[in-house]
Amino acid sequence: MLSFESDYTTGAHPKVLQRLLETNLEAQPGYGSDAYCGSAREKIRAACGCPEADVWFLVGGTQTNAVVISALLQSWQGVVAAETGHVSAHEAGAIEHTGHKVLTLPQHQGKIDPQELAVYLRAFWADGNRDHMVFPGMVYLSHPTEYGTLYTRQELERLSAVSRQYGIPLYLDGARLACALASPQSDVTLPELAKLCDVFYIGGTKCGALCGEAVVFSRGRAPRQFLTIVKQNGALLAKGRLLGAQFDALFTEGLYLETGRHAIDMAARLREIFHEKGIPFFLESPTNQQFVILENSELERLKKEVAFSFWERLGETRTVVRFATSWSTRPEELEALRALL
Amino acid sequence: MLSFESDYTTGAHPKVLQRLLETNLEAQPGYGSDAYCGSAREKIRAACGCPEADVWFLVGGTQTNAVVISALLQSWQGVVAAETGHVSAHEAGAIEHTGHKVLTLPQHQGKIDPQELAVYLRAFWADGNRDHMVFPGMVYLSHPTEYGTLYTRQELERLSAVSRQYGIPLYLDGARLACALASPQSDVTLPELAKLCDVFYIGGTKCGALCGEAVVFSRGRAPRQFLTIVKQNGALLAKGRLLGAQFDALFTEGLYLETGRHAIDMAARLREIFHEKGIPFFLESPTNQQFVILENSELERLKKEVAFSFWERLGETRTVVRFATSWSTRPEELEALRALL
Amino acid sequence: MLSFESDYTTGAHPKVLQRLLETNLEAQPGYGSDAYCGSAREKIRAACGCPEADVWFLVGGTQTNAVVISALLQSWQGVVAAETGHVSAHEAGAIEHTGHKVLTLPQHQGKIDPQELAVYLRAFWADGNRDHMVFPGMVYLSHPTEYGTLYTRQELERLSAVSRQYGIPLYLDGARLACALASPQSDVTLPELAKLCDVFYIGGTKCGALCGEAVVFSRGRAPRQFLTIVKQNGALLAKGRLLGAQFDALFTEGLYLETGRHAIDMAARLREIFHEKGIPFFLESPTNQQFVILENSELERLKKEVAFSFWERLGETRTVVRFATSWSTRPEELEALRALL
Amino acid sequence: MLSFESDYTTGAHPKVLQRLLETNLEAQPGYGSDAYCGSAREKIRAACGCPEADVWFLVGGTQTNAVVISALLQSWQGVVAAETGHVSAHEAGAIEHTGHKVLTLPQHQGKIDPQELAVYLRAFWADGNRDHMVFPGMVYLSHPTEYGTLYTRQELERLSAVSRQYGIPLYLDGARLACALASPQSDVTLPELAKLCDVFYIGGTKCGALCGEAVVFSRGRAPRQFLTIVKQNGALLAKGRLLGAQFDALFTEGLYLETGRHAIDMAARLREIFHEKGIPFFLESPTNQQFVILENSELERLKKEVAFSFWERLGETRTVVRFATSWSTRPEELEALRALL
Repeated sequence: MLSFESDYTTGAHPKVLQRLLETNLEAQPGYGSDAYCGSAREKIRAACGCPEADVWFLVGGTQTNAVVISALLQSWQGVVAAETGHVSAHEAGAIEHTGHKVLTLPQHQGKIDPQELAVYLRAFWADGNRDHMVFPGMVYLSHPTEYGTLYTRQELERLSAVSRQYGIPLYLDGARLACALASPQSDVTLPELAKLCDVFYIGGTKCGALCGEAVVFSRGRAPRQFLTIVKQNGALLAKGRLLGAQFDALFTEGLYLETGRHAIDMAARLREIFHEKGIPFFLESPTNQQFVILENSELERLKKEVAFSFWERLGETRTVVRFATSWSTRPEELEALRALL
Repeated sequence: MLSFESDYTTGAHPKVLQRLLETNLEAQPGYGSDAYCGSAREKIRAACGCPEADVWFLVGGTQTNAVVISALLQSWQGVVAAETGHVSAHEAGAIEHTGHKVLTLPQHQGKIDPQELAVYLRAFWADGNRDHMVFPGMVYLSHPTEYGTLYTRQELERLSAVSRQYGIPLYLDGARLACALASPQSDVTLPELAKLCDVFYIGGTKCGALCGEAVVFSRGRAPRQFLTIVKQNGALLAKGRLLGAQFDALFTEGLYLETGRHAIDMAARLREIFHEKGIPFFLESPTNQQFVILENSELERLKKEVAFSFWERLGETRTVVRFATSWSTRPEELEALRALL
Repeated sequence: MLSFESDYTTGAHPKVLQRLLETNLEAQPGYGSDAYCGSAREKIRAACGCPEADVWFLVGGTQTNAVVISALLQSWQGVVAAETGHVSAHEAGAIEHTGHKVLTLPQHQGKIDPQELAVYLRAFWADGNRDHMVFPGMVYLSHPTEYGTLYTRQELERLSAVSRQYGIPLYLDGARLACALASPQSDVTLPELAKLCDVFYIGGTKCGALCGEAVVFSRGRAPRQFLTIVKQNGALLAKGRLLGAQFDALFTEGLYLETGRHAIDMAARLREIFHEKGIPFFLESPTNQQFVILENSELERLKKEVAFSFWERLGETRTVVRFATSWSTRPEELEALRALL
Repeated sequence: MLSFESDYTTGAHPKVLQRLLETNLEAQPGYGSDAYCGSAREKIRAACGCPEADVWFLVGGTQTNAVVISALLQSWQGVVAAETGHVSAHEAGAIEHTGHKVLTLPQHQGKIDPQELAVYLRAFWADGNRDHMVFPGMVYLSHPTEYGTLYTRQELERLSAVSRQYGIPLYLDGARLACALASPQSDVTLPELAKLCDVFYIGGTKCGALCGEAVVFSRGRAPRQFLTIVKQNGALLAKGRLLGAQFDALFTEGLYLETGRHAIDMAARLREIFHEKGIPFFLESPTNQQFVILENSELERLKKEVAFSFWERLGETRTVVRFATSWSTRPEELEALRALL
């Protein structure tokens, strides 16, 4: 069975696993105070060009979104996101579970539009009934988005400017950030991104780790007592070293970018194959997720030999499906897929 | 530096790590539907003698307590626990964060007394004002307790009988369950324990895993839509295989019990050393945690070379401290400690 | 200053106040167990043609929505509502504050479309990723809607049928129910409505009471321990008699309908005046709220002498505003308004 | 049937009801922005000697406690209270429902001891594990307590000093504050109390109103967006005038104190009767609640003709019961009770 179902089907990048092996028997203090979390924090600060950034390691993406968002919002505030944002649609209501509304804006290939954000915020503050409404307290982006698309630097600058104008933090969900940074179509570097966002997370789970996401508060301190907040949300690992050692490896000798680059190279080859085979694109993304349209009969035939993700129906006879590559996708898997199509 | 600070200072048991290595490059589906979670579930059901048990894998202890307790309680119910229970005292209010009160009973070396539980429940149901109070909806035990002590089979039978009489589930926190099961002083087997509890968890983090706890609903099904509940609490790992593979290894050829047995053997040796050195016990436990009383001057001297845990002050000149052993404690570390004392 | 700002600007209908006066010095037990709550429950059951209905009195509308919705939903469920539904837009996130998402459907003059509801529910249950999403657990309607519009009997029958098909309760917010029942355009009686909904509330605050809403579980029992749930949400009045006496008066000799009828008669006269004066309607509703379009200059002039509500801007030069009537609107106020226009 | 069951069995003081009657038909804006809320705020500020106090009106006691406490605490903080404090024991877990733990101290006739508070806070801040615990973020007192007892000025000064030393607000629940202020044994005036507390509430429901509690932030502003917080908790009355008019009447010509004085005078007479009849006291309070011990046979006989509250059993043959007086207790009721005893 070929696997293009997602970017979390294999384990860890061998170098990441190697770091776990080497450090396994050392005694290290718990809860993120170990030497590897320390070292990973330093390396991430350096990679972000933010010497004062406050860096924390959490376990998974939904957890990170819920903890960071609820920690930054006041009880009377909600988070603004695209209607297709992960927090809006695919986290089982984890944000609402913390008591906060997700305030949705229209999506454009998964992205929100800076102008529409500005119009929404202006209208909110002009509304005389706003005391009876949920206040926009934060802006959420995913980059790459759920459709694999990327914000341009100009878009990020405008989103950042609008957020600052209204005094609310800009938060970027980088579950697949390695693919954004490695994409030839990206015009934003990690230090630029760190400057434009108030907080973001560098995804590990989908970029070569077994688990783990690194939250970067780029302008300094996390919310007060953040460790207690993380604990209270059941998100504090006793053996924080598991996260520290993995991120330490990922930020050694450019491994993090390398995981993204490989995924993207494989996705480029995948796109070529789809083009060659005349399979139409629903959305041709610059990162590791590709959305194509299959005839339902073709879909039924294929799925016996290839794992991919159902996205949405397109009328009666066709279906949008997603193929994802990762750091572990091998060229021979692509060749095998090519042969099948 | 010698390390007796806790049982989560080292990584994973080598056999656990080995399983992660071997399975690393296989493509597996996510969210606990992989082959290793499947296999680990089967092995745990067999070890518990509960073929119909519903087994789930979560990441950490506080998370597991909060998710399981909040999923089983109605909004108007609380969980009954010892005043020293982990959920009462050391989880940063994670239970209250889910909206539920921890209803405390006195502790006796960390344990609750079946008779006191019965009296409390009888009084609650006799109270004409109970509609204005928090209803006891569940009983929480830790076994071993936070003091390393163990419930006897008879105590568990009585706690189980009282809980059933009042129609509320008995939940056992087995963060260090391997040490309970392996203790020569224990008269309860895992199948007996599974029969007496409605739900319990088999701790991985403190018993040889990098992370992970296996929740066993021994009488059948987890609460409806438990996967969604787990996701909503940010507790669902995308790469569930990380948990599955580890528990698969722990429940192969008795490794889980072996981790407990080694910790206890080392703790027995530790006790001998304390006796030999005339260091008084605050509480001499049958498991891997030992509580001794140090003169403050001795404490200051020791802590430069040995890591251990502060427990509580005892007047002006003495302090209770905890020494913990684990699957990874080596005899030579004990000898080095002996030399230092 | 003329007041058409809302239907909660005056106190209670004189007959309601009279009941409070007459009963004031009687000693009555607390928390809704008084004789007047008892009598009001009986009268409401009779008016609804539901002898087995379970009737509860709460204090205000947002409170009622939050308590009822959170009591009926499982933690992993949300409530389906129109995007303009009161719970979606104007309750400061009270529903999300209880941990639940509001799942929005498009609005059509404030109403949701039965067909769109059916399509949404079918799509949800067909989605293979639904375990990672918020489950629709309830349908919320307001009747009259926030735009004063009414569902027809046929629409309610279809909404009821769809909800039942998917096994989720249909909940109707009747903050202004007296106006719905009294409207000549309404083809639904209170007993019919009680039959079609699983739970609804009969609004007091906007229909002649000082405060208070009567929740009717028309198919029998409220959720278990509902009194404790109400208390826990800070919604249980010690002097429940305040609510009981008011609803007792409102359901004596048809007073409730009478409050609606007067409001609607006054609104009909208001519409005539607007027509006469050539003021265009944004939405001409069959109940007590009328939405008209004013030139901004006219708006500025008027608001010095008349209180009305801002609704939304219409381009650069015009504004939608709302005029509301109530049981206490006097014909001479309308004449004075006519003179001003 | 004689009624000494509680202080909320009758309606409103006639002067309070009179104010509702006189103002009933005036059009007033909603949500607390009416003229009567305005006037009541001014009178309360004057009575408290706090011209800058921020005064808000909520509906009931449990609601007020939950809204104020959750608005003032950070998510990682809890509220310190006596184990018998209303928030600990008799509010159905309303505080925990908002996500916060109630941290209990021993009670002494319903009161907490300043010295014990200081010891607890010192120990918390000295505990190296405190990041894994709930932080004490506020101190809760009730005055009178649930046993009708009163703090002395010196006790309040010490509690206030300790709270300020640790930088946490002191909050006083004055559900029955009129009785505290009117008690001859009280040595604290309202302005003194306002100075010593950071926030407190002046109870209406149990002191002559139909409903309503006035929250006083004596040092200035309520938490940011407090109106939205109140709304979000379902605690914002559309017809805020109901609360404003009542408190306006209560703070006109000393009516509030008068309600307390009458209740206390009646309680003094009640105590005389118990002494005369040789009925032993469980606790003889200086306010309107009296706790006496009845033989169970006597209790059974009495309860056919008098309503009083069960408190707790005292061995097999005796029971503690509570008799409460109020502004509406009449001397002839006391005489009738005397005749019965």
